[in-house]
Amino acid sequence: MFDKAYLSPAEALQRLLSSIPDTGITVERLRIEECYNRVIAADVIAPEDLPAFSRSTVDGYALIARDTFGAKDTSPAYINVRHEIMMGTSADFEIKTGEAAKIPTGGMMPEGADAVLMLEHAQAVSDDMIEAMRSVAPGENVIQKGEDIQKGKTVLTRGHKLRSQDIGALAGIGVTEIEVFKKPSVSIISTGDEIVPASSPLKSGQVRDINSFTLAGLIGDNGGVPVKKGIFKDDYGTIKKIIEDSIKDSDMVLISGGTSAGTKDMTADIINDIARSQGGAGVVFHGLSLKPGKPMIGGIVNNKPIMGLPGHPAAVVVCFNLFIKPMIERLGGFKSNKNFIKTVTAKMAKNIASAAGREDHIRVYVEAKDGELLAVPVLGKSGLITTLVKADGIVIIPQNKLGLEAGEEVMVRMF
Amino acid sequence: MFDKAYLSPAEALQRLLSSIPDTGITVERLRIEECYNRVIAADVIAPEDLPAFSRSTVDGYALIARDTFGAKDTSPAYINVRHEIMMGTSADFEIKTGEAAKIPTGGMMPEGADAVLMLEHAQAVSDDMIEAMRSVAPGENVIQKGEDIQKGKTVLTRGHKLRSQDIGALAGIGVTEIEVFKKPSVSIISTGDEIVPASSPLKSGQVRDINSFTLAGLIGDNGGVPVKKGIFKDDYGTIKKIIEDSIKDSDMVLISGGTSAGTKDMTADIINDIARSQGGAGVVFHGLSLKPGKPMIGGIVNNKPIMGLPGHPAAVVVCFNLFIKPMIERLGGFKSNKNFIKTVTAKMAKNIASAAGREDHIRVYVEAKDGELLAVPVLGKSGLITTLVKADGIVIIPQNKLGLEAGEEVMVRMF
Repeated sequence: MFDKAYLSPAEALQRLLSSIPDTGITVERLRIEECYNRVIAADVIAPEDLPAFSRSTVDGYALIARDTFGAKDTSPAYINVRHEIMMGTSADFEIKTGEAAKIPTGGMMPEGADAVLMLEHAQAVSDDMIEAMRSVAPGENVIQKGEDIQKGKTVLTRGHKLRSQDIGALAGIGVTEIEVFKKPSVSIISTGDEIVPASSPLKSGQVRDINSFTLAGLIGDNGGVPVKKGIFKDDYGTIKKIIEDSIKDSDMVLISGGTSAGTKDMTADIINDIARSQGGAGVVFHGLSLKPGKPMIGGIVNNKPIMGLPGHPAAVVVCFNLFIKPMIERLGGFKSNKNFIKTVTAKMAKNIASAAGREDHIRVYVEAKDGELLAVPVLGKSGLITTLVKADGIVIIPQNKLGLEAGEEVMVRMF
Repeated sequence: MFDKAYLSPAEALQRLLSSIPDTGITVERLRIEECYNRVIAADVIAPEDLPAFSRSTVDGYALIARDTFGAKDTSPAYINVRHEIMMGTSADFEIKTGEAAKIPTGGMMPEGADAVLMLEHAQAVSDDMIEAMRSVAPGENVIQKGEDIQKGKTVLTRGHKLRSQDIGALAGIGVTEIEVFKKPSVSIISTGDEIVPASSPLKSGQVRDINSFTLAGLIGDNGGVPVKKGIFKDDYGTIKKIIEDSIKDSDMVLISGGTSAGTKDMTADIINDIARSQGGAGVVFHGLSLKPGKPMIGGIVNNKPIMGLPGHPAAVVVCFNLFIKPMIERLGGFKSNKNFIKTVTAKMAKNIASAAGREDHIRVYVEAKDGELLAVPVLGKSGLITTLVKADGIVIIPQNKLGLEAGEEVMVRMF
């Protein structure tokens, strides 16, 4: 069944990615509040120090460390408390030998002081005198000016996807607007003479559009903007026109359905046809050593990926994760050498066979049993959407493996 | 340093959750396109079968299985091809013994037929006659009516968070509007005499608001609606008033800053003060055996959680994951016995010590080295936002453990 001529998913992705330029992506300037999970388009250089002044990390007494050297319970050092620092204000005095200023956590260190003695290590002798019961080292209990972020240093680099704490860091140095890459827009074209909108009454022989709903969610969750183009009949001229329209107004085009059966060559022919007039490699691969997802088509027209997805719901999700997600990331400027997939480690609940030369993506649900996590294969044809509804994730059996054994440890790639 | 009287994070969360009712959550009715990652508020019962008719899963010939029994290359069965099924249309004829209809993948099975012979296992003898070179079993190559989803069966249950494929399944059975729980709104109150907005010019002794930006992102990513209330001075009346206002118009209130140092008792006093007039347990815990995050306050007023968060950026993220996230889920109706945290397994790159009786949350970055993943602790005080920017996730050292050794396998909870 699986022709050796079919590409592996990894080779297929490589062919696609090498055909898409990673420059020239549109950039937009936004307020940082709008930039959560967006990809930064230019390195951010700190315009100021964070903190802008040295701060105490405890409640205590700002003083000169060497005045406390040798101090202990039995032979305390005596220090004059001549000042008190108030939160959010600048100290307009200087600490001299034998002096201290009362300081709250986060307070600004006064001139001259180089350490803070914690409140609990001091004992009041009089209104303006304390005993230091311990010694402190220079710098102790102090965050130095610029210790968090140094002015002029690179804080975040181009291609980084901004997490909540990254936005916090930008706020901390007063960077309230940044340039981010525009989210790639992804057209979804549903094809099939039998497909009707989810809201339509069903006539005999018809089925509702499922895949455009699944795809729109996956695209949105992974940093793209889904653009549903609608449902189109399996007709060469009709499909060609909507693909051409979609190339004009989006960064990637997905054609759902129409890659197997009677129409299997039509989508590929149309992609080659459009590539002849607009440029690009046309069809880069057609058919993969992959299950589910074998009839997948990948093409390039005018530097844009045009993907023909199988009609089976499970194949749609597998192909999304293997191809569409990495291409959304490429088209959205995302760069990371740490793009770890989040997984759960579990033990296979039963044996699963796989054909040699084929990468198998097994839907599983994860179940806690006797203190262990089990990955239980979800049975059912890949045409059934409920196999995905029941599943928590996917276990991959690589091409060179003939299956998985019950009890074998596997990584579940969670949905 | 760590008083035995302090609660563990797990006990503290339990106290909070047991004080919040999980009924009476507001419900809204939305189109399914708007329901990605929302929590479903009522079980969905399938109003129709999916598929609504039995379909072929291959290109081939719909026929009566027993007509092929015993067929092989050397002694094929002869079948009359009297009809052709078109996609999306109903067959208005019946297959009788010895007859077949040509059928495409996804085509509707005609009356009388119970299996499909694949195209590649048939050989045309004449215009209306094929040789079946193999036998097929009843049901072979057919998805039965209702095999994916059966009319009247529960498809999704109340409390489930809707993934892309779940929305696809709803579309498949024509359910285009559903009831979901309203997203909980979470007020963020920033306090501190030294805190100024991110966009303000800095005066000496002042620092910009970082935590409200980090919190807003985390709240949004985890199913809540952040409501930034602004920055307020450390003054009893001022803070009391803004907390009271926030209780009126949101489901949870976070007070960032003001839980340690000079103001440490003020937030707790205000929560108890408001609880006396509005009802509720008031402060449920103040101080935890947790690092970072020790000064955390948890309270309940009028069935709503009121949380005092430490000011340190790293403590904010740790406390968010331990307390705020589970409470957003509770207030948003989310129920799951499979709430697996997504992790990466790695080896500790160096020894890390931890005090007995304290749960330590260590920030780490993950690095691939010699084919292994290493979890490298990010050094630096928990007051530094850049420790979070450098980190990929958190490794937890439980209360009863005295540290981690280099080479020890750990689960990194990825940000």
